[in-house]
Amino acid sequence: MTLDIGVLGYRFMGEAHANALARLPMFFSDAPEVNRHVLIGRDEHALKNAADQLGFTHTATAWEDALDEIDVFYNLGPNHVHAEPSIAALEQDVSVFCEKPLAPTLSDAERMADAARGTDAIAGIAFNYRYVPAIQYARELIANGDLGEINHVRARYLQDWLVDPDAPWSWRSSKDLAGSGSLGDLGAHSIDLARFLVGDVAGEIDRVSGHLQTFVEERPVDPDDDDSETRPVTVDDAYSAQVAFESGAMGTFEASRFATGHKNDNTIEINGSKGSLRFSLERLNELELLESGNRGFQTVMVTDPDDPYVDHWWPPGHVIGWEHTFVHENYEFLTSVRDETPYEPSFADGCTVQRILDAIEQSDERAEWVSVE
Amino acid sequence: MTLDIGVLGYRFMGEAHANALARLPMFFSDAPEVNRHVLIGRDEHALKNAADQLGFTHTATAWEDALDEIDVFYNLGPNHVHAEPSIAALEQDVSVFCEKPLAPTLSDAERMADAARGTDAIAGIAFNYRYVPAIQYARELIANGDLGEINHVRARYLQDWLVDPDAPWSWRSSKDLAGSGSLGDLGAHSIDLARFLVGDVAGEIDRVSGHLQTFVEERPVDPDDDDSETRPVTVDDAYSAQVAFESGAMGTFEASRFATGHKNDNTIEINGSKGSLRFSLERLNELELLESGNRGFQTVMVTDPDDPYVDHWWPPGHVIGWEHTFVHENYEFLTSVRDETPYEPSFADGCTVQRILDAIEQSDERAEWVSVE
Amino acid sequence: MTLDIGVLGYRFMGEAHANALARLPMFFSDAPEVNRHVLIGRDEHALKNAADQLGFTHTATAWEDALDEIDVFYNLGPNHVHAEPSIAALEQDVSVFCEKPLAPTLSDAERMADAARGTDAIAGIAFNYRYVPAIQYARELIANGDLGEINHVRARYLQDWLVDPDAPWSWRSSKDLAGSGSLGDLGAHSIDLARFLVGDVAGEIDRVSGHLQTFVEERPVDPDDDDSETRPVTVDDAYSAQVAFESGAMGTFEASRFATGHKNDNTIEINGSKGSLRFSLERLNELELLESGNRGFQTVMVTDPDDPYVDHWWPPGHVIGWEHTFVHENYEFLTSVRDETPYEPSFADGCTVQRILDAIEQSDERAEWVSVE
Amino acid sequence: MTLDIGVLGYRFMGEAHANALARLPMFFSDAPEVNRHVLIGRDEHALKNAADQLGFTHTATAWEDALDEIDVFYNLGPNHVHAEPSIAALEQDVSVFCEKPLAPTLSDAERMADAARGTDAIAGIAFNYRYVPAIQYARELIANGDLGEINHVRARYLQDWLVDPDAPWSWRSSKDLAGSGSLGDLGAHSIDLARFLVGDVAGEIDRVSGHLQTFVEERPVDPDDDDSETRPVTVDDAYSAQVAFESGAMGTFEASRFATGHKNDNTIEINGSKGSLRFSLERLNELELLESGNRGFQTVMVTDPDDPYVDHWWPPGHVIGWEHTFVHENYEFLTSVRDETPYEPSFADGCTVQRILDAIEQSDERAEWVSVE
Repeated sequence: MTLDIGVLGYRFMGEAHANALARLPMFFSDAPEVNRHVLIGRDEHALKNAADQLGFTHTATAWEDALDEIDVFYNLGPNHVHAEPSIAALEQDVSVFCEKPLAPTLSDAERMADAARGTDAIAGIAFNYRYVPAIQYARELIANGDLGEINHVRARYLQDWLVDPDAPWSWRSSKDLAGSGSLGDLGAHSIDLARFLVGDVAGEIDRVSGHLQTFVEERPVDPDDDDSETRPVTVDDAYSAQVAFESGAMGTFEASRFATGHKNDNTIEINGSKGSLRFSLERLNELELLESGNRGFQTVMVTDPDDPYVDHWWPPGHVIGWEHTFVHENYEFLTSVRDETPYEPSFADGCTVQRILDAIEQSDERAEWVSVE
Repeated sequence: MTLDIGVLGYRFMGEAHANALARLPMFFSDAPEVNRHVLIGRDEHALKNAADQLGFTHTATAWEDALDEIDVFYNLGPNHVHAEPSIAALEQDVSVFCEKPLAPTLSDAERMADAARGTDAIAGIAFNYRYVPAIQYARELIANGDLGEINHVRARYLQDWLVDPDAPWSWRSSKDLAGSGSLGDLGAHSIDLARFLVGDVAGEIDRVSGHLQTFVEERPVDPDDDDSETRPVTVDDAYSAQVAFESGAMGTFEASRFATGHKNDNTIEINGSKGSLRFSLERLNELELLESGNRGFQTVMVTDPDDPYVDHWWPPGHVIGWEHTFVHENYEFLTSVRDETPYEPSFADGCTVQRILDAIEQSDERAEWVSVE
Repeated sequence: MTLDIGVLGYRFMGEAHANALARLPMFFSDAPEVNRHVLIGRDEHALKNAADQLGFTHTATAWEDALDEIDVFYNLGPNHVHAEPSIAALEQDVSVFCEKPLAPTLSDAERMADAARGTDAIAGIAFNYRYVPAIQYARELIANGDLGEINHVRARYLQDWLVDPDAPWSWRSSKDLAGSGSLGDLGAHSIDLARFLVGDVAGEIDRVSGHLQTFVEERPVDPDDDDSETRPVTVDDAYSAQVAFESGAMGTFEASRFATGHKNDNTIEINGSKGSLRFSLERLNELELLESGNRGFQTVMVTDPDDPYVDHWWPPGHVIGWEHTFVHENYEFLTSVRDETPYEPSFADGCTVQRILDAIEQSDERAEWVSVE
Repeated sequence: MTLDIGVLGYRFMGEAHANALARLPMFFSDAPEVNRHVLIGRDEHALKNAADQLGFTHTATAWEDALDEIDVFYNLGPNHVHAEPSIAALEQDVSVFCEKPLAPTLSDAERMADAARGTDAIAGIAFNYRYVPAIQYARELIANGDLGEINHVRARYLQDWLVDPDAPWSWRSSKDLAGSGSLGDLGAHSIDLARFLVGDVAGEIDRVSGHLQTFVEERPVDPDDDDSETRPVTVDDAYSAQVAFESGAMGTFEASRFATGHKNDNTIEINGSKGSLRFSLERLNELELLESGNRGFQTVMVTDPDDPYVDHWWPPGHVIGWEHTFVHENYEFLTSVRDETPYEPSFADGCTVQRILDAIEQSDERAEWVSVE
């Protein structure tokens, strides 16, 4: 059986997933066969070029037209186009792989999760950082009790690409189009990672205190034009949050697009009663690990053959990159589709993350701690 | 003129300050001459031994008896004995150097700050980390505008000495005696450091959201006795806080005595529009610095002769230790006493820190953001 | 024009190059079109499977049969089969891309370089680490004079996969088959990297002092069999060398397969009169750089769009991996083949490296410094 | 009993040892009582000031005059005045503590070692880096067999204070006065450290290959004068060496005063069959340690109460500095003097180091490996 794939979106995420699909046969011989069938977008000319480059045989300018022809729909568009096409696909029992955050609003996310519950198709959300070998390894250690009871989770996702006040306005600057700023774009990753790593041990996030800040209030539409029209920035440039897990563990979360010197610094540290670990995406082949009986953090290269996914790649110390997380992710998602087995992170997971993001935003507005129902 | 010094407390802080006093003549030739006159404590035998070891000529078991004989009173006792002796000394125009936090409660701190305002004697609070050369250097860079506008302050003070549930109960476990736990002990340092570094640029901390947690609710009085009486832990094992500075800068603060793998990890990172810096006390001779025009953080050894205080010590790369901060601190404080010039951090600074700590605690209780008046 | 490629070798290097060939169209749109035409090996069954996996349309068990059908011959076999097939191909004006070291002996390497001189076909040696973006960036800085005059080159390539005395004997253990051990396998990379980075500024390596050591003298053929036959290890487990460059710069080189804790740690540090830099392959997206006017080494993420090759991949901070160096390398080599332009590193470069390796070995035997003619 | 101390030299080393002597009573209560009796130097005025600052009661401009009055003679002068006064003191049964290297020439060193053998007085050489807690801890681990058989020793001591060609000529630039440059000043430390750490396990250094280089051939006497007289630099700016230990372990050594970006970077790494460790003086409270059963190097803070010497100082994570090594060293040396017990490193150790340095120099001259007899 070959799965016919339709992909909405051909920029950054489109390329990342198309590359992953293209690489599966050489490195994951038991992956489902896939056909990069149709690439979906609005600008016909750009779309055509992208389809050539990314190896799709067809194009479509309306997602509605494509759903009939495909087994799996990848929704990689801007956040405000996540809900309708994904729900429509699921209603036709087409499996859906949707980029994060699930939706710009909690109500959209809930509608999407409802649609997923009503179908046998697979509905996955693309939290790719779950598929870093070091993260999978960390999860195993925590699940095995190697860290003991979890006391602290400390997650930050720092970038600096907006610190220049002349950086241009984009759909990401708009609450209507993006839902939120650093919170949904980066914070969603942190929240998912925390849930993935400690959820089984520390439970869910129970209540939150949030803080959102916009440092630059308006941005030029065309930064090369000195007299460019400016538009208001209606999303957060940075957020922070304190959280309490059900177990009593404390969490602190933060993300920023104004953290000068940090490019893609997705960091998480976890302290337990018996050990600790920390990870940074900028050094994604490494895990810093304090084990019981040791005196300090080990810097572990998670590149051994028995590390998660590593046997598919290269010998020890021959590091992999960011894009490899997409290969692992696509392998697992497509295998679930083929085998009709449940996939996690699911739309339900995406919706739970959205509920937490929403609580953080409400907390900021109301200046008080907010329970995550 | 020789300053006669009386010191209350002869354990950890007593040794740190006595050592500093003893080292001044060899390394700071223009420091005031001091006489380690009287050591004050309750246990006569231990006191006697300590006075011999630390080089004091007299001892006293009641601080009231000592004030007449001294020019400067060092209050290094537990937090609950900060207020009365310090106020009494100031009322007699004896200069006072008091360990942090200023007091267990805000009202005590305010009484102490009032007493300081009513005298020409010098009243200083011993926030020694201001005197790390790398911190002084960082402050200069920020004051010069090298980091631009400050967007983020991120401060953590992590230790792990209480993660063992059998670690014994002490005065530090009691709200009555200590005021708070990690918040007052460690958080006070972080708050002072943040104010010292960015206060001139980002203004004061305006409002806070706090979270306090006690992971182990009771501890044995005598851990070597299996049937030991236990007493309740009434202070926080860890705290976190989100803050807003007057300028709009965001701050996140955290401290813990349960952060497995961290021994004395007092860390601060600051991101500005033009640069960033970060510091960890465990590597106190280094500053990580991102300057405008550079692509990454430099690891700067702050050990050059023109670095703050370094010309008093050793050649470049010959690192100094934690205790040196006390030498610098005592040098500055005693010079202020001799020259009758204002000293910072003052009791007013200590009181401001206390006000912020108090707001964090109130925020935790009320589950809402609290303004720092 | 499509280039028909024949590849001898289908294990580690075969997979690395086949992957690179497969990835060119999506990421390097101006790369030559290539046809993975024929995979060459001896074990027909394994070869067939590999051809399927790696995307080759044909197989051949004798390289002689394949040369007629191809434009480019990739020689990725063990060192002792580098010379004959490569020379035969070049004599038929088939371009050759040969894995390093060029040959097990200097005389073979010289015959290969001679053959390359006698043809218009392109003869390249696959020193892939030249194609790490951070290395290309470092070379530019040095060529621009940013480091001033070069005083020190310090290169180490450390692995630990042979530290276990029961690790099995292989062709890599045999002087006849491999030529040398860590010296040819790892040292060749270090020498090439040093020449690439500082050759234009510090000149060639003039004379050397070498030290080779074999820590485990014989190894089992089958480590799972307690009574396994053992065979003698006739190559070095580790080597070190001191070198003098023509300019007077000093170099120290070292490699080991016994450096416990190092997986694939290919490190080089260069100190000049105005600056310094260092690089480790285990963190291949980073360059540590001390520039004139700075106080410490910056940790630079070499992942910006204007960094070498990075615009073909992902946004800043989205790190690439080891395999990407092969994509860059194949892009450059195949472009040279298509455009009939010279390619470096050439067989002449490979031969120069071999001459230095040979001098190191001779120096070890004669216990004296040896000039590199 | 109080030991009367006479110290020749009042600059850098004079201050370092005087400070150590002054600090003993407060922190090492069982140390011998010492009297800083006489400071010895030539410039009467500077000497007087130094004596005041460093706490000596007397001064002397001729060391011959002082020997009668003292129990212990500290020889901290330039290398060319190490031999005569030290030998004279030992002949009078005055114990001697001499700075490293033992002497500018091997024959001087041998005469000193002979003198030491002929007396019951204690003759120690001041290799202070043996007294870093992390180094003592490392030695214990190696002696316990935790690293298994030693395969590699890699030691570098890098500084950059001479990279400026206008840095002034000094006695350290002259072969007559200093004996050698980086080799004797820095290499002596590396060689001693290697012997201290692995000597019991890997045996002595058996044979060496050396390389010495002078990058700047002459230097101004007065760099502030544009027409300053220049004098020739007759010592090495940098050296490297390869060594073979008796056990077959390989060593590489290097030092430089031209390693731009390194201030006082005394680094050693040791790889054994079961583990590895590395240390850098710029982070002297840390040891990087790979233990059997672990996957990566741990960063261990060697600041726990049961770490060597640490119980005399501060709680975990409260780091000590470079100068503390002198306190430990003086404590041990003076205890040996008082108790009439052997002290290591002795003059015999100093002489062995000198023999190795001499072999490195001879190897450089003869361009061949040289045996260390």
